[in-house]
Amino acid sequence: MISDDEFITHKDVPGPTKEEIRCLVMCKSKVSPEDIVVDICCGTGGLTLEFAKRSRLVYAVDKNLDALNTTEKNLKKHKLDKKVQLIHSDALEALRNIETFDILMIGGSGGDLPLLIEEGYQKLTQNGKIIVTSILLETPVEAVQTMKKLQMDIDIVDVSISKGRVMKRGTMMLARNPITIVTGKKN
Amino acid sequence: MISDDEFITHKDVPGPTKEEIRCLVMCKSKVSPEDIVVDICCGTGGLTLEFAKRSRLVYAVDKNLDALNTTEKNLKKHKLDKKVQLIHSDALEALRNIETFDILMIGGSGGDLPLLIEEGYQKLTQNGKIIVTSILLETPVEAVQTMKKLQMDIDIVDVSISKGRVMKRGTMMLARNPITIVTGKKN
Amino acid sequence: MISDDEFITHKDVPGPTKEEIRCLVMCKSKVSPEDIVVDICCGTGGLTLEFAKRSRLVYAVDKNLDALNTTEKNLKKHKLDKKVQLIHSDALEALRNIETFDILMIGGSGGDLPLLIEEGYQKLTQNGKIIVTSILLETPVEAVQTMKKLQMDIDIVDVSISKGRVMKRGTMMLARNPITIVTGKKN
Amino acid sequence: MISDDEFITHKDVPGPTKEEIRCLVMCKSKVSPEDIVVDICCGTGGLTLEFAKRSRLVYAVDKNLDALNTTEKNLKKHKLDKKVQLIHSDALEALRNIETFDILMIGGSGGDLPLLIEEGYQKLTQNGKIIVTSILLETPVEAVQTMKKLQMDIDIVDVSISKGRVMKRGTMMLARNPITIVTGKKN
Repeated sequence: MISDDEFITHKDVPGPTKEEIRCLVMCKSKVSPEDIVVDICCGTGGLTLEFAKRSRLVYAVDKNLDALNTTEKNLKKHKLDKKVQLIHSDALEALRNIETFDILMIGGSGGDLPLLIEEGYQKLTQNGKIIVTSILLETPVEAVQTMKKLQMDIDIVDVSISKGRVMKRGTMMLARNPITIVTGKKN
Repeated sequence: MISDDEFITHKDVPGPTKEEIRCLVMCKSKVSPEDIVVDICCGTGGLTLEFAKRSRLVYAVDKNLDALNTTEKNLKKHKLDKKVQLIHSDALEALRNIETFDILMIGGSGGDLPLLIEEGYQKLTQNGKIIVTSILLETPVEAVQTMKKLQMDIDIVDVSISKGRVMKRGTMMLARNPITIVTGKKN
Repeated sequence: MISDDEFITHKDVPGPTKEEIRCLVMCKSKVSPEDIVVDICCGTGGLTLEFAKRSRLVYAVDKNLDALNTTEKNLKKHKLDKKVQLIHSDALEALRNIETFDILMIGGSGGDLPLLIEEGYQKLTQNGKIIVTSILLETPVEAVQTMKKLQMDIDIVDVSISKGRVMKRGTMMLARNPITIVTGKKN
Repeated sequence: MISDDEFITHKDVPGPTKEEIRCLVMCKSKVSPEDIVVDICCGTGGLTLEFAKRSRLVYAVDKNLDALNTTEKNLKKHKLDKKVQLIHSDALEALRNIETFDILMIGGSGGDLPLLIEEGYQKLTQNGKIIVTSILLETPVEAVQTMKKLQMDIDIVDVSISKGRVMKRGTMMLARNPITIVTGKKN
């Protein structure tokens, strides 16, 4: 994994997704070098870069131009820009314009989550994965309900990580916000 | 419990201990109206005030004068100052000058934890409790080791709490740092 | 709090709610000696007994007769049976037959959660509380949505507790399932 | 990652290390195809197999013969046995007989953790990693203290994972025991 502090950040762009969560998302996605990935709401580009290192092509989508610019800077910094196509667009519209893909990563949905999952499902290759990450209470419930309807295989993990800071007087454990990762596999 | 936002705070004083942790400490202490309590490292006074509401007398100890002043302000705000004696002193020295008590609360130790527990144990009434809270990795281990040697009954809980913030787009779950509460009972 | 192991249990009845969760629910409820409490889905009686110790009257409701019998045994064991009225009934029907109350505790809903909250809200005194606990992902979302509609003040905490088991080779930390506690206050 | 249920297990052998923890350990180790790995206390072989897929050679050490046999069965099942050398021995003795390695994984120590880390450190290549995982409260403290003395770069994460079980009435979140992963890098 790329270290959290190796990412260029922007004050109006969330992310990067923390190292440990990027790690778990890569494992859950089972991404392979032939895969095409769509990364919705790419933000700082944390997941975009990790997918770029491990797949054939990534479409990184965000409607926030600052996010796309930040992702681009990070891609160039890590010489991964040739693997990624940046799309400045609404998520649903972007999905409609991409033909097919093996992994759909949804890090944010702007309220359209069930629609995004349903639309994505249509274009997903067999055994393809849809991954939804969230710190909202509502998002995993919506994801599970929609994936259930689509009869996907569903894996749900709620991850709480505390990170130790070694100080003179001891090791302080600092909590990160819990993240729920919902992964649906198309059968 | 007093709400977190009802405490007067000070920039150089840690605390108050969050509502949920105060609640659990009160339960673990089984404090009753006849009890004498010593609160080491009282900080903002979060636990001091809760103990004051439920016990006969609390000795609140801190070597940081700002902490004692902040605790005093909070006691007066909640009309609990008559139940509490403030002691501006090193923890170990303070313990040596108090005759006996039913509950010893240690929220910070300045590196003297085993000594504090051993000294406190001598002055603790039968069935009395020593409670150690910490966000450091090392402190609960030291507490357990010392309490084991003293053949106390030991209860250990590690508590991770996330608090929901209701927003328009959903309920964001914000993590608090994990706290370990070690409770030893004198047999 | 009553220790977890002081409860009589029954193989077909869930519970008792663990000590730390009972403790947090008591704090969140701000129960006082004049209060009337309704405990929906009382199970083993863990929360019923704690409320009984701190309130005027508790209606304990369950449609599982084994649950009511187990709760009754525990009430008698702890000499709290005079404070509690046992109701063998569907939750919604029970609510309709009780005139008014200060605290509505919902530990299970059989799929009727929004209805239960709405019905309960009507009968709740001003500043009264509805508390929903759950280990399901969906329940807190439903609770928050319904309480939002009713313009209640909402407090949400997700609690993950690990309990230490002191062994010769060290202290093993054993996780309890995470519980979300949603508390709504009627304004 | 190999799924948890694809491992052959044995009633007297702990493991396999859960998928998500294996995933995080692989990330923290930054294992590469040229690396030599030592896996102390290999148990069921969960981490052994993952390292075997990603490195040049793994020494899997356990003093429990059932563990080694179970690891061997799993290696054969997944056709990874040619990458692994099984060593039936005390951990410290095994370390003394291996010349050099890039990654030392310690999943159990039998009380010798500081010695194991110190001995391992001597044989570790530059930028090599020592990784200690534990569910004991004491182990991460010992690991951090020893790695501090050796002036290693230390990363500490405490990971609490709940796994969702999709049922008819909702998604039940079931907690796994928290695991602390301490990673030291030799400078």
